[in-house]
Amino acid sequence: MSGRLMVIGLGPGDDRTLTREAHDGLLAADALYGYGPYLDRVPVRSGQARHPSDNREEGARAEAALRHAFEGAKVAIVSGGDPGVFAMAASVCEAIETGPDAWRGLDIAIIPGITAMLAVASRAGAPLGHDFCALSLSDNLKPWELIERRLDAAAGAGFVIALYNPVSRARPWQLAKAFTLLGRHLPGATPVIFGRAVGRVDESVTIATLAAAGEIAADMATLIIVGSRETRLIARPGQSPLVYTPRAVESVSA
Amino acid sequence: MSGRLMVIGLGPGDDRTLTREAHDGLLAADALYGYGPYLDRVPVRSGQARHPSDNREEGARAEAALRHAFEGAKVAIVSGGDPGVFAMAASVCEAIETGPDAWRGLDIAIIPGITAMLAVASRAGAPLGHDFCALSLSDNLKPWELIERRLDAAAGAGFVIALYNPVSRARPWQLAKAFTLLGRHLPGATPVIFGRAVGRVDESVTIATLAAAGEIAADMATLIIVGSRETRLIARPGQSPLVYTPRAVESVSA
Repeated sequence: MSGRLMVIGLGPGDDRTLTREAHDGLLAADALYGYGPYLDRVPVRSGQARHPSDNREEGARAEAALRHAFEGAKVAIVSGGDPGVFAMAASVCEAIETGPDAWRGLDIAIIPGITAMLAVASRAGAPLGHDFCALSLSDNLKPWELIERRLDAAAGAGFVIALYNPVSRARPWQLAKAFTLLGRHLPGATPVIFGRAVGRVDESVTIATLAAAGEIAADMATLIIVGSRETRLIARPGQSPLVYTPRAVESVSA
Repeated sequence: MSGRLMVIGLGPGDDRTLTREAHDGLLAADALYGYGPYLDRVPVRSGQARHPSDNREEGARAEAALRHAFEGAKVAIVSGGDPGVFAMAASVCEAIETGPDAWRGLDIAIIPGITAMLAVASRAGAPLGHDFCALSLSDNLKPWELIERRLDAAAGAGFVIALYNPVSRARPWQLAKAFTLLGRHLPGATPVIFGRAVGRVDESVTIATLAAAGEIAADMATLIIVGSRETRLIARPGQSPLVYTPRAVESVSA
């Protein structure tokens, strides 16, 4: 029997945001690997082994799953959101590049999922309706100076900005600093969307302005979208406002 | 009966990439609106009206669907990929902002889908594994100078770049110009991924270098991902290479 490694995106929350392809992949697997809380979202199936691991163990998890698949099993690594966005697909590729040559012959399938920025955007309207970028605010894996340079470049050129990993216990100050930096490029009235646990039962979405964004609570389960100069807010009586970025830009100064 | 407008993402191709939420929304609708080829992907259901329209008629489609929902119907607008990414959700918001005040009271639900860049990335490995941006190359809706400025900013700051709407019959020269411009920032060996009709029966994925990217055919069904200086290619015997961008960046010069 020849093995297979699937890297499966669970989407942002419950199984309503799972694709059929991801659902079928989870059913077909002999063994599941993943960060504990993501694995907990997958229904237990008898005969299917489960290997939860910790948040910071992506490299070891990828290697363990590759070894298991190489033995001939159908193995799935589960990832919240999309596995290709700041997640396990890159860790698997890295493990293949640095691992035994034989791993390059393995059958690898990456099954996409709804990444957090798409889910949060859908709750607010269409903030990603025009050019945008996605940036991890964690300086565990890159220098803070590079994050600042990218925030400058993105805001200066008019991209809407989705911030992944905006804050953690070990990194309490970066987010406020990012908002201050973005405030040099953008008006204080620029809409900022905070989506926490979107797609799950404890989902919350808060819409603020850039000037007031520093006062809103955020944690590792929060995805933040900072608008551009073009991003607009539509007030709605009795409902939360719609935030959207028009598809058309008239002038180069935008 | 109170109406509802759903804007539903079909994902990139067949119903294997549809979420359950999108599937349920399509079943619940009294009427479907959308670009003809997207509507054709949705199975016909008796009693459900279908209103196909042309590619360039987003504004009129959004208004027609809003009027229909305001009459009390459950209406769905379908969108390929994700409705929030260069697609119908922004057109609906724009129609609400410029339309009758009463439309602001409507129940609007945007249901996310797998957008093309996630599907194409999944076929190649993990090219979007680090900071990236999404940019429409169409100058129908913004000045070409602004596109050039954004390409410069994104490549200069080390973002991987996903290019939507890379070429059309009316815009034959932009893509080659974009590759030339990106070549000022990036080595000729930078991996470039061309994904056409990914998720459909006629899917094709081509991996090239930036230096040779101008020779690869592309059309409006193509999504292109241009790597950063960090993006790596893993050769695999008997299989297409894996392309990925590592999660960690060591130095600021990247």
